[in-house]
Amino acid sequence: MARVRASLERQGMMATLGVELVAVGRGRVEMALRHDDRFTQQHGFLHAGAVASVLDSACGYAAYSVMPPDASVLTVSYTINLLAPAAGQRFTMTGQVVRAGRTLVVCRGEAFADGAGRPFAVMQATMTALYDRPGVSG
Amino acid sequence: MARVRASLERQGMMATLGVELVAVGRGRVEMALRHDDRFTQQHGFLHAGAVASVLDSACGYAAYSVMPPDASVLTVSYTINLLAPAAGQRFTMTGQVVRAGRTLVVCRGEAFADGAGRPFAVMQATMTALYDRPGVSG
Amino acid sequence: MARVRASLERQGMMATLGVELVAVGRGRVEMALRHDDRFTQQHGFLHAGAVASVLDSACGYAAYSVMPPDASVLTVSYTINLLAPAAGQRFTMTGQVVRAGRTLVVCRGEAFADGAGRPFAVMQATMTALYDRPGVSG
Amino acid sequence: MARVRASLERQGMMATLGVELVAVGRGRVEMALRHDDRFTQQHGFLHAGAVASVLDSACGYAAYSVMPPDASVLTVSYTINLLAPAAGQRFTMTGQVVRAGRTLVVCRGEAFADGAGRPFAVMQATMTALYDRPGVSG
Repeated sequence: MARVRASLERQGMMATLGVELVAVGRGRVEMALRHDDRFTQQHGFLHAGAVASVLDSACGYAAYSVMPPDASVLTVSYTINLLAPAAGQRFTMTGQVVRAGRTLVVCRGEAFADGAGRPFAVMQATMTALYDRPGVSG
Repeated sequence: MARVRASLERQGMMATLGVELVAVGRGRVEMALRHDDRFTQQHGFLHAGAVASVLDSACGYAAYSVMPPDASVLTVSYTINLLAPAAGQRFTMTGQVVRAGRTLVVCRGEAFADGAGRPFAVMQATMTALYDRPGVSG
Repeated sequence: MARVRASLERQGMMATLGVELVAVGRGRVEMALRHDDRFTQQHGFLHAGAVASVLDSACGYAAYSVMPPDASVLTVSYTINLLAPAAGQRFTMTGQVVRAGRTLVVCRGEAFADGAGRPFAVMQATMTALYDRPGVSG
Repeated sequence: MARVRASLERQGMMATLGVELVAVGRGRVEMALRHDDRFTQQHGFLHAGAVASVLDSACGYAAYSVMPPDASVLTVSYTINLLAPAAGQRFTMTGQVVRAGRTLVVCRGEAFADGAGRPFAVMQATMTALYDRPGVSG
């Protein structure tokens, strides 16, 4: 969807990380990220913060995709579990709406390395819709 | 402590974000981060992922500071609540050990903008100590 | 505050657990719970669910204490870390507001056994204020 | 599996709540709970603490079902999102292993009311295996 792409292009963080928007559907977003030495932790694997950033955005845009056109999306909170080191070359991150209420939308995120079938990180995120904030969109 | 600084210097992510290690004590670490357009979300504020990355590292090193010398530290999971947009020029992030067990250490993180007294983000994190992993240190 | 007490008295769960309201201040609530074999887990300690129930209520009422008079309070989500078994006779649970926004209030909960200085469980909770729900109060 | 049932029968909390073990498979457990005025919150719905208790046990036993025979299971932490009030007569709670490591097992829990297809609560839980604790089993 165009407005997800437009919003994503305004995120300096996603551009810096080199994130690719792979797919956007109603209530589901998939993004990809490549290994980069600029975003590693002390053992040489991708830093949890980079993984969390992209999962957070994938969940946020999944929520945004089911919100009314005049809404903006903001992250309220999320929990991330890191199940294994982020070892690999290309990481796929999905965000999926679990349930959407009037203002709060709960999403689930999963991160996969190099096409593995089991996630190496999972997220449970709470997003909120904002309305009538001049200068705030996306 | 020297080993916290040594480990931090091996984190590509922290160097990329320009993170400064402000203080390290036993069970407590403080880091600082400046606003940078490369790390923003779609509304121009610092991306939650950048905030979470630094809080995660502050909590991780707070945990590391109470672990035995031969341990490495890894993030198991964390929950972050974003209480207000990350609006400001300089952000201070603290990590504090709540309780340390044999392998698991629970920490609390708080993020402050421009010297404000109330945090704009809080984290509850679970860290684990790893032993006997050749090639893994810090 | 009277309305916290009135709401608490309508909670069947708190009556069943035998919860005592120890103190209520603006943004802070303290409750107490006694060990009871009806609420144990398989090793004979208090079940995490009993601990979480009381911490959740303490956080909920801490949030409620800073909400407008016509608001009701509902739990959006919480994260609980269990740092040690709930071993003891009397457990004190505190809920404290970290930051209150227009509709969302973030709280921190801590559980102590028999007057210990360190918590055996900690919670980070997100509460929401509800308005204009006929038949819903407290 | 017999050992899940044996452990569950030692949980005073599950007996008090009247929890029924519906199904146990490798890495997946389903439990059921009926509405009971003894376990309500102030609006007459089932208290989040009751919901969380059963989801926590479902996740714990799902984790236990993939652990070695000599292990005990303990909850490290969980995050629960309450997506709608627990309104209904019978609640089904499922726990499912997402990924099992050497000592930590991450699970996902979902709670459904009266056979609804969408969950009214979701959980992301971290469980740990304990070994060699005399007097601790299950």
